[in-house]
Amino acid sequence: MRGLLKNLGGIGLLFFSAGALASDSASKVSVDTLWVVIAAALVFFMQAGFALLESGMSRAKNTVNVIMKNYADLCLGSLVFCLLGFGLMFGANPSGFWGTDHFGLNPNQQWDWALVLFQTMFAATAATIASGALAERTRFGAYLLCACVVMGVLYPLFGSWVWGSAFAGTGWLAELGFVDFAGSTVVHSLGAWVALAGVLVVGPRIGRFDAQGKPRLIPGHNASYVALGGLVLWLGWFGFNGGSTLSADVSIGLINLNTHLAACAGCAGALLACLLSRQALSVSQLVNGSIGGLVAITAGCATMEPLWTIVTGAVAGLMVVFGARVLLRLRVDDVVGAIPVHGFAGAWGTLAAGLFLQGNMFDAAVIAVQLIGILTCFLWAFLGALLVFALVNLVLPLRADPQHEQRGLDITEHGEIGYPEFAKGTAYTSKTLEGLDP
Amino acid sequence: MRGLLKNLGGIGLLFFSAGALASDSASKVSVDTLWVVIAAALVFFMQAGFALLESGMSRAKNTVNVIMKNYADLCLGSLVFCLLGFGLMFGANPSGFWGTDHFGLNPNQQWDWALVLFQTMFAATAATIASGALAERTRFGAYLLCACVVMGVLYPLFGSWVWGSAFAGTGWLAELGFVDFAGSTVVHSLGAWVALAGVLVVGPRIGRFDAQGKPRLIPGHNASYVALGGLVLWLGWFGFNGGSTLSADVSIGLINLNTHLAACAGCAGALLACLLSRQALSVSQLVNGSIGGLVAITAGCATMEPLWTIVTGAVAGLMVVFGARVLLRLRVDDVVGAIPVHGFAGAWGTLAAGLFLQGNMFDAAVIAVQLIGILTCFLWAFLGALLVFALVNLVLPLRADPQHEQRGLDITEHGEIGYPEFAKGTAYTSKTLEGLDP
Amino acid sequence: MRGLLKNLGGIGLLFFSAGALASDSASKVSVDTLWVVIAAALVFFMQAGFALLESGMSRAKNTVNVIMKNYADLCLGSLVFCLLGFGLMFGANPSGFWGTDHFGLNPNQQWDWALVLFQTMFAATAATIASGALAERTRFGAYLLCACVVMGVLYPLFGSWVWGSAFAGTGWLAELGFVDFAGSTVVHSLGAWVALAGVLVVGPRIGRFDAQGKPRLIPGHNASYVALGGLVLWLGWFGFNGGSTLSADVSIGLINLNTHLAACAGCAGALLACLLSRQALSVSQLVNGSIGGLVAITAGCATMEPLWTIVTGAVAGLMVVFGARVLLRLRVDDVVGAIPVHGFAGAWGTLAAGLFLQGNMFDAAVIAVQLIGILTCFLWAFLGALLVFALVNLVLPLRADPQHEQRGLDITEHGEIGYPEFAKGTAYTSKTLEGLDP
Repeated sequence: MRGLLKNLGGIGLLFFSAGALASDSASKVSVDTLWVVIAAALVFFMQAGFALLESGMSRAKNTVNVIMKNYADLCLGSLVFCLLGFGLMFGANPSGFWGTDHFGLNPNQQWDWALVLFQTMFAATAATIASGALAERTRFGAYLLCACVVMGVLYPLFGSWVWGSAFAGTGWLAELGFVDFAGSTVVHSLGAWVALAGVLVVGPRIGRFDAQGKPRLIPGHNASYVALGGLVLWLGWFGFNGGSTLSADVSIGLINLNTHLAACAGCAGALLACLLSRQALSVSQLVNGSIGGLVAITAGCATMEPLWTIVTGAVAGLMVVFGARVLLRLRVDDVVGAIPVHGFAGAWGTLAAGLFLQGNMFDAAVIAVQLIGILTCFLWAFLGALLVFALVNLVLPLRADPQHEQRGLDITEHGEIGYPEFAKGTAYTSKTLEGLDP
Repeated sequence: MRGLLKNLGGIGLLFFSAGALASDSASKVSVDTLWVVIAAALVFFMQAGFALLESGMSRAKNTVNVIMKNYADLCLGSLVFCLLGFGLMFGANPSGFWGTDHFGLNPNQQWDWALVLFQTMFAATAATIASGALAERTRFGAYLLCACVVMGVLYPLFGSWVWGSAFAGTGWLAELGFVDFAGSTVVHSLGAWVALAGVLVVGPRIGRFDAQGKPRLIPGHNASYVALGGLVLWLGWFGFNGGSTLSADVSIGLINLNTHLAACAGCAGALLACLLSRQALSVSQLVNGSIGGLVAITAGCATMEPLWTIVTGAVAGLMVVFGARVLLRLRVDDVVGAIPVHGFAGAWGTLAAGLFLQGNMFDAAVIAVQLIGILTCFLWAFLGALLVFALVNLVLPLRADPQHEQRGLDITEHGEIGYPEFAKGTAYTSKTLEGLDP
Repeated sequence: MRGLLKNLGGIGLLFFSAGALASDSASKVSVDTLWVVIAAALVFFMQAGFALLESGMSRAKNTVNVIMKNYADLCLGSLVFCLLGFGLMFGANPSGFWGTDHFGLNPNQQWDWALVLFQTMFAATAATIASGALAERTRFGAYLLCACVVMGVLYPLFGSWVWGSAFAGTGWLAELGFVDFAGSTVVHSLGAWVALAGVLVVGPRIGRFDAQGKPRLIPGHNASYVALGGLVLWLGWFGFNGGSTLSADVSIGLINLNTHLAACAGCAGALLACLLSRQALSVSQLVNGSIGGLVAITAGCATMEPLWTIVTGAVAGLMVVFGARVLLRLRVDDVVGAIPVHGFAGAWGTLAAGLFLQGNMFDAAVIAVQLIGILTCFLWAFLGALLVFALVNLVLPLRADPQHEQRGLDITEHGEIGYPEFAKGTAYTSKTLEGLDP
């Protein structure tokens, strides 16, 4: 297998011969594959960002649980997506409503493996958004089952309407001209509407609202993780947006500059919102602001001028801060702010991709199609997820026992304590230690 | 030096001209170099994954020590490998048993610098595997010396039998047809057998086994680090396996999809093993399961169909969980599970690369050669390392003083406390503060 | 937007057809863009490295504050650099002293967006260096204002003398032949001299020096973050140095090998310095040593042989350890060692790039120009920053109130506690909780 090594070595490069000795050119398909594979790795790493952000915003007694949800939904969900979801989303799609082949990693069909890899990472992103909103009171097994249904059915079906197919036929929203380059709606809003359905089914954490319905602060256990998670997500987004070209061409310069500017402007917008509403400049607000900016530019990053990107991102940052307040008024307990960040900012960004479409700005027909796509996503994902959560709830209750919730899901579901030497009130007792090791 | 900048800028790209203005093609050698350099960066980052995983599974009082072992073996070992090991492994190899040139970064020879960089990262991976198994009771200086011998001699010699040479001649195992694409055996099993030798020489931590030899749980101090470390390792593996093509071609799509699927299946296998054996679904088990899957697919990632990859990974996940139990019965104290994860899963994966070799599955001759390679690695690495550890032990004792071990190696070896404001029973006293600062 | 997907899918790749089906070649400009975009992502990720390193070396009560400074200066500074600084640095530069166009992301001009992205990340690196030196006693708003001036004016003007212009004209230092490939001086020393000015303006932390001026140790709160931050910075440097080719050619093999070796040698140098001066081998020393090595090789990584790189890095490691001692004697309180790491090692590395210039070593004329560049940078950045800090200080005082400093800037400036469940003496009281949530 390492025969290649000999060839490469045989070329015998002197210090920096700048390619002078090379006689042949790189093929376009190999460079495109290279980019898609690298971008897939970056999108994969967003899972670490979600894990850090979500655990940082949760209490120490639930940190293992929330991280493990991210880890396990990635693992099980990737298998489900590869075996089932990819075909539904990217298989030949004559009706415009679902894919009909490329199931089960069928060895008798032709595959673009780099595409499968990249799209699996996208599906995992969509699925994991809900885990943060549902943190600290949702049971591990039931959550995992729901995540697998999202990655296997709910996400790929909607995806097939916009991005299907890779092989034959076109999704019906794509036929209408719906613009969602890298998935403000397909990935992020969808994930957020799933989260909203889940939050309504499981209800708020014990103690989140007092008897009068006034919210009480439940601080997360690690602000450093939140900021680090935000930076890791931002890093991953360069693969998420840039990689959605599926091809290494110069357009990724603009796409990733837009990605960066939107995150910066989102943070600036959140900062402004905090100042306007006399809130403290907390880590969560600024980080969520920048992620809101990233979500918002995802739809239009390839077709927007940088100055409009800054507008799009800044508005997203404002929406994230004020949107979170609205949800609290409605007694919706979204632990990490996933619904404003991925849902509200995603819808806004999809609209902005129409409003500020380069060469055709403020075109009513374009805007109408964008609104159809945004609304369709909401109806499909919210109602579909409500059904999924309700059905799963009948078999495996989603909500943890109140006693488990108060003790923390780490010890009750994983027999483990995140920080046995640090956190107050959490320590291994001789009882908990029994039977944890063989 | 920035003259290039002017040229690039001079091209004057409009928004996304999609390469229309480019008149020339990228050379294959430059794109291959690009990929090898990027992959090397990803493999480098695995050091952060090891550091997090190993420190997370150790107690707070040893966290600096275990992280610093990872950091310093990388630094010193890289220098030793570049000056000595690279030549032994990749130099002209007429005998098939060792390389004979390219030592000392000799400026009078021809070099492929990207290859040197990439292989240095591989050597560092092999060397650092032992640090986790040996955590919490091994002295810093003695460990570092051993790691340098591993990177300078033990690893490159075995490597030359499989992957040598880049210049002239072929290793004897390569001649036989041994399949180990990216190093399930060459890197991971080798590292694990070194770890096994080390663990036998230094013995178990104080308190790990009671008087009857029954294991007692010593929980690690930070489960979040473990999960994050797992994700970072997984990310790095996309460079580890994908980069082993040493060339940017479309095969990296399949290679990295296999890499991802094996990790997912490994986690699923570990989850199943936990359920079967009624163990808690702890972070360490699931993360180690997925790393076991990654180790296992490393040999066959370029020559296996994805469905067989899932089988390979799932079996590896099962082996990791049950293998750890077997080691505990044998009173082997491997702090992080390096031996089952890198050793058992590596051996299994190397066998699987033969069993499921695309186009030639279940061929007895292929399987026999795989077994020869696996066994040779065990004998060479285990016996060689046993000798190295025993010799070093004569000069610099490997085992920390019992008092130091109980106080923690951070303060005794580094004059430092990992978390002076958090951890119970660890705080700077006026005594420890004296002399720490100039 | 996903029409591309169909095309790629239509190619219908079989398992690994190794590009056989591809009829066309990748264009050079697209591959160069790909590399610049990837390198920009790596440089971006250095922000996470700085955040971890700086917060790890600070106390828990200031961890949010120092991380948020990194986060917010990136966000606001990037906008300022794109709108103002990029034009000053890379716009047409007839005088050799400043750029005169490409302001405000003007849609009527031609842009290389990947270059804008890459250079924005560089500017953010230069700006964020000061945040660590100034940690634990500098107010958030005033710091942000200063960072914006650095990224908008101070850094790009000096940069235009060395790297300007991308379009027309050449900076005056570039005309002289000043060698600073990736910015030992332009980025790192400049950042450090800004930090020095800041440190002198804000003064040392309360309690850092006793009445006799003897330093007292103030340990950072998380040594793991320091090591992890070091590894993340190291990773990012592969983009920082390698990406400065602005083109994907084989020279990046040597550049990134040099980068790696310098970091290793820097760590080895620091280790030696600790042994020589009988200091403990602490995390901070070894990590700062390796970063010093990275800073030092940044100027000469493309034009130095690897053996000389090792010398350059090792000397830098020694300088970092001894330089920190000198600063302490002078009662300069640089929390993270930014001044020795980025300033002293940067100046040394710029000199070394002249001393060990491949093909023209130890040439007095070259060395003289290097010294002119080093000195010019010091005068410009130190005096300029002194003026900026002094002016800002008149409007927004930089130094936090002593009460705020003692309570910690997290709660006083951000209404937030980094680790509400862990750190001693920090907990939300009913008072602090009021008004933090809507």
